[in-house]
Amino acid sequence: MRLSRYFLPVLKETPSEAQIASHRLMLRAGMIKQASAGIYSWLPLGYKVLRKIETIIHEEQARAGHLPVLMPTIQSSDLWQESGRYDAYGPEMLRIRDRHERDMLFTPTAEELITDIFRAHVASYKDLPLTLYQIQWKFRDEIRPRFGVMRGREFYMKDGYNFDLTKEDALHAYNRHLVSYLRTYERMGLQAIPMRADSGPIGGDDTHEFLVLAETGESEVFYDSEITELKFGAREIDYDSHDQCRAVLEEFTSRYARTDETHDEAVFAERVPEARRRQARGIEVGQIFYFGTKYSEPMGATVQTPDGKSVPVHMGSHGIGVSRLAGALIEANHDERGIVWPWEVAPFQVGIVNVKQGDATADAASEGLYKALTAAGFDVLYDDREERAGAKFATMDLIGLPKRVTVGPRGLEKGVVELTDRRTGESEEIKPELVAERLS
Amino acid sequence: MRLSRYFLPVLKETPSEAQIASHRLMLRAGMIKQASAGIYSWLPLGYKVLRKIETIIHEEQARAGHLPVLMPTIQSSDLWQESGRYDAYGPEMLRIRDRHERDMLFTPTAEELITDIFRAHVASYKDLPLTLYQIQWKFRDEIRPRFGVMRGREFYMKDGYNFDLTKEDALHAYNRHLVSYLRTYERMGLQAIPMRADSGPIGGDDTHEFLVLAETGESEVFYDSEITELKFGAREIDYDSHDQCRAVLEEFTSRYARTDETHDEAVFAERVPEARRRQARGIEVGQIFYFGTKYSEPMGATVQTPDGKSVPVHMGSHGIGVSRLAGALIEANHDERGIVWPWEVAPFQVGIVNVKQGDATADAASEGLYKALTAAGFDVLYDDREERAGAKFATMDLIGLPKRVTVGPRGLEKGVVELTDRRTGESEEIKPELVAERLS
Repeated sequence: MRLSRYFLPVLKETPSEAQIASHRLMLRAGMIKQASAGIYSWLPLGYKVLRKIETIIHEEQARAGHLPVLMPTIQSSDLWQESGRYDAYGPEMLRIRDRHERDMLFTPTAEELITDIFRAHVASYKDLPLTLYQIQWKFRDEIRPRFGVMRGREFYMKDGYNFDLTKEDALHAYNRHLVSYLRTYERMGLQAIPMRADSGPIGGDDTHEFLVLAETGESEVFYDSEITELKFGAREIDYDSHDQCRAVLEEFTSRYARTDETHDEAVFAERVPEARRRQARGIEVGQIFYFGTKYSEPMGATVQTPDGKSVPVHMGSHGIGVSRLAGALIEANHDERGIVWPWEVAPFQVGIVNVKQGDATADAASEGLYKALTAAGFDVLYDDREERAGAKFATMDLIGLPKRVTVGPRGLEKGVVELTDRRTGESEEIKPELVAERLS
Repeated sequence: MRLSRYFLPVLKETPSEAQIASHRLMLRAGMIKQASAGIYSWLPLGYKVLRKIETIIHEEQARAGHLPVLMPTIQSSDLWQESGRYDAYGPEMLRIRDRHERDMLFTPTAEELITDIFRAHVASYKDLPLTLYQIQWKFRDEIRPRFGVMRGREFYMKDGYNFDLTKEDALHAYNRHLVSYLRTYERMGLQAIPMRADSGPIGGDDTHEFLVLAETGESEVFYDSEITELKFGAREIDYDSHDQCRAVLEEFTSRYARTDETHDEAVFAERVPEARRRQARGIEVGQIFYFGTKYSEPMGATVQTPDGKSVPVHMGSHGIGVSRLAGALIEANHDERGIVWPWEVAPFQVGIVNVKQGDATADAASEGLYKALTAAGFDVLYDDREERAGAKFATMDLIGLPKRVTVGPRGLEKGVVELTDRRTGESEEIKPELVAERLS
């Protein structure tokens, strides 16, 4: 993309309403614009990050055998009456009346609707196991929305639902999701720690939240420091194997790690040596639940067992905050000059700065690099504006592309351009024709 | 994808509520399920089609130089008060009050919000031309929703907005969109004819609707039969060239083609020889508008001209009904046995039917083909269920994959499988190892 043809409205001043780094930087880098309280438009740069996050989630969901669907944002209240949550949900649910005076709502989650789809179409154990998920907009009418997309009212979320014949199978689905989520966050360059949490309005027996450690996190967390050394890494996993998935769950959850909702100081002191006890703040970026027959029983979602009995299906649900992740990624990856995107979720991977736009040699070299890197499959932003070099550098630093190539007449005289790493700040001089190879 | 692990709830009976082919077939093929009146969930097969349509639109928008954004579904009423449309829009607008008693709405279109983004960030002619678009859910509270996704209440739509310094530039944006839309529809295997239409609540001077001819269309259309012979085809176009884009517009709109809103019987009779006069029905799948300063003036969206004057920006908007296209594609592509997907938007391109699941030779050959075709980059659905061959054929016909490979012990004895074209019904015997090459 040529910056002269892009829409990147960076702000020079720091917006006064933004209290945390991600909110400030998303506004300054022209990623989002507030539309109304807690509701944002995603401008091209922000949209691109959102899509990259989404793509990683879809790929990892497919790997785990989960199937994508898309449910509507506006639902009738009927199903929520059936489950008993319509009255229980409180003022965070955005309630709507349509032109025929029917009670509708903007869905904050979709256990009821997915259970309705299931009961209409699945009748036999033969069609199990089944996990359906979607990435769709949700609404939660927060009384005091804040922190930009981290605690907005309209938010983008991956929500998945598993259906299994037995509790054992459903617990395997729970473990499988834990594995899949670990992989998903790691691919984004994020360490998200599963912590025992409270199940809140979703309900159920078993739940873990995934937390990214960050000073600006809203949750207080308590954990054994050993847990931060764990990595899922590149290991192979068979998602059908109960044993393999359970082993990962045990590895990642056997050490003490809890949010303040479930924290127990006595247990913490007893199980964790003092030197490893940590208290910190964390951003919740996902949660998994096992809740058995909580929805299937009242809603009559039953299946036939192999011996002809009819039993309610065992369920769980699982969420990843997609729009919130854009913010969490920035909280975990920024410095005083701006964002520092991890490679996999960077809106563009490489920025080309032509320090002397209009100079025939610099223009030709920049243009050649832009075409070569694009052809090599990189996502490239070429700053071809007639601007001072300093302003171009500041913009690149602010929007945080992992690599920058600086092209100028002085280097070109020596036959080189400069390749700079945004995170380390390290630069090297390199022949233009070797840049693509070096980045691979 | 193995069908045994997929969620494809096909229906044997034709649902009584569905009046038109696309609605019937989408329900029967397990593509959608009604959630409430005019509101649908997209099951895996339907979701896959929706994504393929969306991908083509994104690719063609990028080719034309348009930039993707994402605006929220819930907007405050404030901006709509500014433009004067809040009161004018009527009961089709879904109006909502949030917990702080603020008037909100579920957006049916986004001229106001995009103009607000523009005026906040763009001040100079140097940043023009600019075209921003999104693919996002919209809501229109139809009094009598019907025809499934063709006239639903919650619908998925591509809506784009151009900003230009002069009327001439804005008319070029109009022409560019016309070209881009022609390409987009043709890539989906659809002929969508641009017809002079009425501008409705969007307003403006100039507008064309794109109509797909179909008996079940809601619009009555009148056109010169020569128009159906036009094809954009594989020609190259420079989207920056005013002349090239204008020439395409002239080629595709110079013949008489109008919806009933603008039809004039006298002009029709005068300009079109009787033998070429056609009256038919059409499905509207897109519309483009030029409306100049209708929104920029009341909302104060101005830019500086090269000589330092401040002028309201010239605008237009452009829409493609994404969810509606899934239905329109089926209206234009089905037979008595089911859907007949065009290759580019087919949920899977190839279906493998193993007629004797459990037979070691047939299983191994099917498995081998599934792996080989998938590795060759095809989207393959392998029916590996323990089902009668007849039921498997019926399912494949119903869901309408372009190509079917039938694998059975009898053919394998001769070293062949059967490759069948869904549209023509023609079959040929072919060595399994040659199938991938034949499909390329």
